[in-house]
Amino acid sequence: MIDYQAPLRDMQFILGELAGLDAVAALPDCEEASSDLVNAILEEAGKFASGVLAPLNRRGDQEGCRLEGERVVLPQGWQAAYDQFREAGWLGLSLPEAFGGQGLPKLVSTPVWEMWFSSNMAFTMLPQLNVAQAEALLFAASEAQKATWLEKIVSGEWTATMNLTEPQAGSDLAATRMRAEPDESGNYRLHGQKIYISYGEHELTPNILHLVLARLPDAPEGVKGLSLFLVPKYLLDERGEPGEKNDVRCISIEHKMGIHGSPTCTLSYGDHDGAIGQLIGEPHTGLKTMFIMMNEARFGVGVQGLALGERAYQAALDHARERVQGRNVVSGEMGLPILHHPDVKRMLVGMRARLLAMRTFLYTAAGWFDLARHHPDAEVADKHRRHVDLLMPVAKGWCSELGNALCDEAIQVFGGMGFVEETGVAQLFRDARIITIYEGTTGIQANDLLGRKILHDNGATLRELLDDIRTCARSVGEDARLGDLAESLNELVYGLAATTDWLLAQGEEQTAELYGGAVPLLHQLGIVCGGWQLARAAEAAQRRHDAGEGDADHLVGIIELARFYMASVAPEADSHARAVRHGGQVLARIPEAGF
Amino acid sequence: MIDYQAPLRDMQFILGELAGLDAVAALPDCEEASSDLVNAILEEAGKFASGVLAPLNRRGDQEGCRLEGERVVLPQGWQAAYDQFREAGWLGLSLPEAFGGQGLPKLVSTPVWEMWFSSNMAFTMLPQLNVAQAEALLFAASEAQKATWLEKIVSGEWTATMNLTEPQAGSDLAATRMRAEPDESGNYRLHGQKIYISYGEHELTPNILHLVLARLPDAPEGVKGLSLFLVPKYLLDERGEPGEKNDVRCISIEHKMGIHGSPTCTLSYGDHDGAIGQLIGEPHTGLKTMFIMMNEARFGVGVQGLALGERAYQAALDHARERVQGRNVVSGEMGLPILHHPDVKRMLVGMRARLLAMRTFLYTAAGWFDLARHHPDAEVADKHRRHVDLLMPVAKGWCSELGNALCDEAIQVFGGMGFVEETGVAQLFRDARIITIYEGTTGIQANDLLGRKILHDNGATLRELLDDIRTCARSVGEDARLGDLAESLNELVYGLAATTDWLLAQGEEQTAELYGGAVPLLHQLGIVCGGWQLARAAEAAQRRHDAGEGDADHLVGIIELARFYMASVAPEADSHARAVRHGGQVLARIPEAGF
Repeated sequence: MIDYQAPLRDMQFILGELAGLDAVAALPDCEEASSDLVNAILEEAGKFASGVLAPLNRRGDQEGCRLEGERVVLPQGWQAAYDQFREAGWLGLSLPEAFGGQGLPKLVSTPVWEMWFSSNMAFTMLPQLNVAQAEALLFAASEAQKATWLEKIVSGEWTATMNLTEPQAGSDLAATRMRAEPDESGNYRLHGQKIYISYGEHELTPNILHLVLARLPDAPEGVKGLSLFLVPKYLLDERGEPGEKNDVRCISIEHKMGIHGSPTCTLSYGDHDGAIGQLIGEPHTGLKTMFIMMNEARFGVGVQGLALGERAYQAALDHARERVQGRNVVSGEMGLPILHHPDVKRMLVGMRARLLAMRTFLYTAAGWFDLARHHPDAEVADKHRRHVDLLMPVAKGWCSELGNALCDEAIQVFGGMGFVEETGVAQLFRDARIITIYEGTTGIQANDLLGRKILHDNGATLRELLDDIRTCARSVGEDARLGDLAESLNELVYGLAATTDWLLAQGEEQTAELYGGAVPLLHQLGIVCGGWQLARAAEAAQRRHDAGEGDADHLVGIIELARFYMASVAPEADSHARAVRHGGQVLARIPEAGF
Repeated sequence: MIDYQAPLRDMQFILGELAGLDAVAALPDCEEASSDLVNAILEEAGKFASGVLAPLNRRGDQEGCRLEGERVVLPQGWQAAYDQFREAGWLGLSLPEAFGGQGLPKLVSTPVWEMWFSSNMAFTMLPQLNVAQAEALLFAASEAQKATWLEKIVSGEWTATMNLTEPQAGSDLAATRMRAEPDESGNYRLHGQKIYISYGEHELTPNILHLVLARLPDAPEGVKGLSLFLVPKYLLDERGEPGEKNDVRCISIEHKMGIHGSPTCTLSYGDHDGAIGQLIGEPHTGLKTMFIMMNEARFGVGVQGLALGERAYQAALDHARERVQGRNVVSGEMGLPILHHPDVKRMLVGMRARLLAMRTFLYTAAGWFDLARHHPDAEVADKHRRHVDLLMPVAKGWCSELGNALCDEAIQVFGGMGFVEETGVAQLFRDARIITIYEGTTGIQANDLLGRKILHDNGATLRELLDDIRTCARSVGEDARLGDLAESLNELVYGLAATTDWLLAQGEEQTAELYGGAVPLLHQLGIVCGGWQLARAAEAAQRRHDAGEGDADHLVGIIELARFYMASVAPEADSHARAVRHGGQVLARIPEAGF
């Protein structure tokens, strides 16, 4: 069994020095986020993650979920953990106080959710759905609907699901067929089938609220004809309590490679008279609400990549410190832990460098969310919104890909023991495999980045970001001891600026070719962002070190991690850049018959 | 369920045009390998793989193996498949005729074993062990021992195991503790425990022969004190038939992430009076025999990478042709199979290009094995032996890493359906995860490459290989239509030559740093070899196309695949080169306290 300890030292360093906790706490509605309160929250969350959720993670994997008739039985321990989670108030951390939440900024909730995902990803998908649904209702529901549903969702008294996918409508929601027809009572009757519904059925709570994408009878074709409905598992009686069972049932659950503790259900709506639901928002605007939530959801998956990578790293590091094997390839010394083998050290340092890059990137972006939402100066708020929008596909795509790579590398550190399930790293590797797929595959993130985020505004936002990175490089370079990092960062920016110029210089007839290079482009941008954030981290670490603050080994370590990243990860940016330019062209020439 | 069809067209193209089947068939003892016979064998093997082994693959994964007392129960269907496999004579394909085999060259057996691994890797590990053990006995056993055991192994009447690992002795065989003491009968009594023994126990055959690494009482410390013993599950009676049960038993089997159909046993030797075994070869020379076998075994794992990648590719391609989803990102056209999305096409073309590179590389190396073994001119034989030795860590390390990457990419093509076990690609991904670990991790391959294969002879063999690649580039460049490929290949060679010069210019005090860059070095060499082989493939394809031979789409496809590789894979060689030079230096500076 592998343990988990929240990486509080890194988290606090990043929040305080790099992601702007003070600036966020100075925003309207964010005043509570003092560093004292935040530290207390992180410590409590760390204890809950290590003590309650982490020990259940393997049981969830081994027991999995099972369908008994129409009942879904969750792994043992899920009920108690959920009750504790709910009672401690963790669900409402970032949700509005008006509905029972604590209203803390995203910058504070992000490290907390990172801990939940690290400790038990399959479990955490459940409360995460409540947060997502709450945000959808806050955006689109009527005041009466908010009054009816939101407190239950924020408190976790009832749980929530998101129903988008159908067998013929996966990445392509335009193909959605689920029907919703108005009935005489002012409600709607839904008919159809939804698949891949996480926590679509269970008995942890007295009710489950399904948010369902469906078509009204007069709906236009395609995504502009999608509406959103709230369909409770049990209809509410006159006292607002769960009463009669609605016409929705679970007909199967998936046998998956990972996240076994999270049931993935096929839900059948309206086998009898139709499942009764309420329309949320205006007709035919369901996709708009979904898009609002998508940035948040995609960001959350990026955090999952970081979180699984962190737990895999901790496991690998512990193992490498304990496992004695072989002779040092250079000194011939015997009886050394494998951490001292240069290649094992290379893997661990590479993992740690990429974790630091991801965490700084994601927390910094979380701060931007808060600035975008709360900053009184509309121009400042707007700039951060633009940058969040530009970088969300990178946060999702790059961090989920890295999360997988880190879990893979952790197995490699374990060797044969990593392939055996008992050690627990195999589970992380299996669990992680979904994150480059759900909430839009890496390919879909890359298309979004290229099309909607870069070509759409003629590269304006990306160029604005590149200017910010150049400013950072200048600042880092003012300290001669970090001159090499500034130089590496400038190289990264130079390469990305060249890619940007090239992309925008292509004519419309080349567009198909450009999309053939979208994924390499996403990787290039991700690597540049990582280098940027590590250069900032090194600069802050040097500053603290010079001031005699903090732990010297920790700070020197951060500076060297930035160097290792520049030496061994940053060069990949170049090879991606070449693939962007040339790969797509060749691709367009290959005949299908040549496969 | 995913199907498998042997890729006969590519196999035959490579055997005939690139890997030198004619030259091999002209060698002494290889005359039987006419292209007619080889084609007939490949077709038969393809039928067996598709018809018998492939349909069992998923059942093996789902049922797995179970331990009942000391009995290991294999998945249903294993017995019948094994009997058919044995009766068809597939086991002896490459083993000597003197012991009942067919004595065909490695170039012929390689594509056949590729098919077995593609169709059912967990099953195929069983006959593979017979071949490995037969080769060990051929090398080291006495004539009397060969007469006693070899026919049974070659025919598959009995099966075989290899016993190396102990809990404290994984990659480090020097830590082996298993004891072997001579008894009065001229045999040895073994005491100790071995772990990770594939097919260490089962009841498919009337006997199992364990080849066991152990220490004699007077053995020196370390690897120079290891001897090899043959320990049958059942001792032979006076008629040479299995009689009394030996003192060895299976005490547990591992619960693994993949290859569930292959039982991984912990064997306990000598719980009573000691397990009775025969010494194979001279005392204390066990490691030498193991090393002889290691090249073969590592090559076999490289073939597994190719084989799993091939099956994953076939599954992904079939899915991408059938699955209709979304609108073309450029034309807006609806109802298209996802193969027409540029990013999906990118993944599939990238998979196919790397498969072609791997297959050409491995088959060509198989031909070198044959030339090394059979060529009458000692100088020619010796050169091929040197090149095989140099490139074995690349065949194992690079192809196993690529095999994993391809299975990963196949899941990405499947999207959410890939994460669900029903589609079968998840199994390939889980099965493949062991191949970068067993027979020496990628890190160990890389250390071997850098230390024993490059530094040891001062880069002489690598430089000889680079000259051969330059000669190839010149030849390819003579056709102006392929000038771009020749240029890309020259760039690859130039980069690798620079890395080689740099490595050899470092002093002894830098050696630890060099090993910190060993894995990137292995990747750089692998990518160069892949580019080399694809340039050769393009040249041969162009030649056949000009001559009006073969299928034009297939041949043009090969040329474009080579271009795609040069555009999108080859640039990675540069980033690895930078990691070789700079990564190790930084690594050496990072303090352990900085983790």
